Amino acid sequence: MTVAQPREEPLTVILAHGDFPQRPAVQQYLYAAKRIICCDGAAADLLQFGLQPELVVGDLDSLPAALSEKLSGRLVRISEQQSNDLSKALRYCLAQGWTNLLILGATGKREDHTLGNISLLADFCRQAPELKIISDYGLFLAVQEPCTIPCQTGQQVSIFSLHPDTAITSTGLRYPLQEMRLTRWWQATLNEACGNTFTLSFSGPGPLLLFLASPETP
Amino acid sequence: MTVAQPREEPLTVILAHGDFPQRPAVQQYLYAAKRIICCDGAAADLLQFGLQPELVVGDLDSLPAALSEKLSGRLVRISEQQSNDLSKALRYCLAQGWTNLLILGATGKREDHTLGNISLLADFCRQAPELKIISDYGLFLAVQEPCTIPCQTGQQVSIFSLHPDTAITSTGLRYPLQEMRLTRWWQATLNEACGNTFTLSFSGPGPLLLFLASPETP
Repeated sequence: MTVAQPREEPLTVILAHGDFPQRPAVQQYLYAAKRIICCDGAAADLLQFGLQPELVVGDLDSLPAALSEKLSGRLVRISEQQSNDLSKALRYCLAQGWTNLLILGATGKREDHTLGNISLLADFCRQAPELKIISDYGLFLAVQEPCTIPCQTGQQVSIFSLHPDTAITSTGLRYPLQEMRLTRWWQATLNEACGNTFTLSFSGPGPLLLFLASPETP
Repeated sequence: MTVAQPREEPLTVILAHGDFPQRPAVQQYLYAAKRIICCDGAAADLLQFGLQPELVVGDLDSLPAALSEKLSGRLVRISEQQSNDLSKALRYCLAQGWTNLLILGATGKREDHTLGNISLLADFCRQAPELKIISDYGLFLAVQEPCTIPCQTGQQVSIFSLHPDTAITSTGLRYPLQEMRLTRWWQATLNEACGNTFTLSFSGPGPLLLFLASPETP
């Protein structure tokens, strides 16, 4: 008897309108994805790179007219002002049943956009447990529960808490956290993995945001 | 009778090791400063730009040997691992009595450094009330108390709270906050000033971090 294996869901890349990835190791996700969903004006960057978006999602106010025409039929206009284009794209993807989601272009340029985009991970991590932001400098993910994170020995790790009452304990990090409460974003940065995993547990409200620096970047 | 006016304290720029400012309007602070204090490897960027640091502060592990030699006599080595180079530079400046401080190069490159650097404003805003980060995209400042912030009509404004229990009320913003508690960094982003000031009051723990986008940037 053979048992049907669950097929791994194809990768959907959401390209936000921050810095376009420059590192080949990051750009390869654009080639590997089954589909690329662009947040509004990011479509221009993708076309310039030589790839096509499957869809462009957002209020579409930063898409040049010529591009709107060229991509007509691929535009998903969502005009509400309560959320930004990345949030709209994430909700759209989840509504299609696409949960294997990777966000590129989420950081760089305006820093308030960067902060907002990073914290969206916390809102969507339950519905899309594999959700990550990858930049030229590393990756961000959000965790809701105690977790073991794969990494490389010596890889730099930073932890950010969205709630200062959350008490965090780590194993496998060079500077261990013991029920540590983070009231400032710098307090658990620049840690380092001792092996090829590290473990976090915490009591109190989550989620935590984790940053793992690319081993290739300083 | 003449009364001695307090002289305005000369500007000290601290140059951190993120993205070097590209916009002339930001670079002008480098020319206007009485002194420039570089965080470690940022000294290389400043020399390449054609200016000299008064001092280089940090653990100095990212300063090339040739540069260490060239700048010997201007190096302030602080090796403790509990704080980053920007924090060391800020403490050093305050210890000299320099409180008119502006930080450039605090954002860009590794996003965990960006987050950490921004949140340092919250730690130092009491000692240096004029303290700001200015990037090519806008400026960050931290506020401990109800405040009126000068701005331009239509300028984009984002507010970040370090504690989710803090209830924030605004006047003079297009999307008013009414005792709003921020549990996510995106929740009070992309607001807009209605006039040439806006006002924030809040109950609960501060500080708040404010971002004002440069009118020139999208």
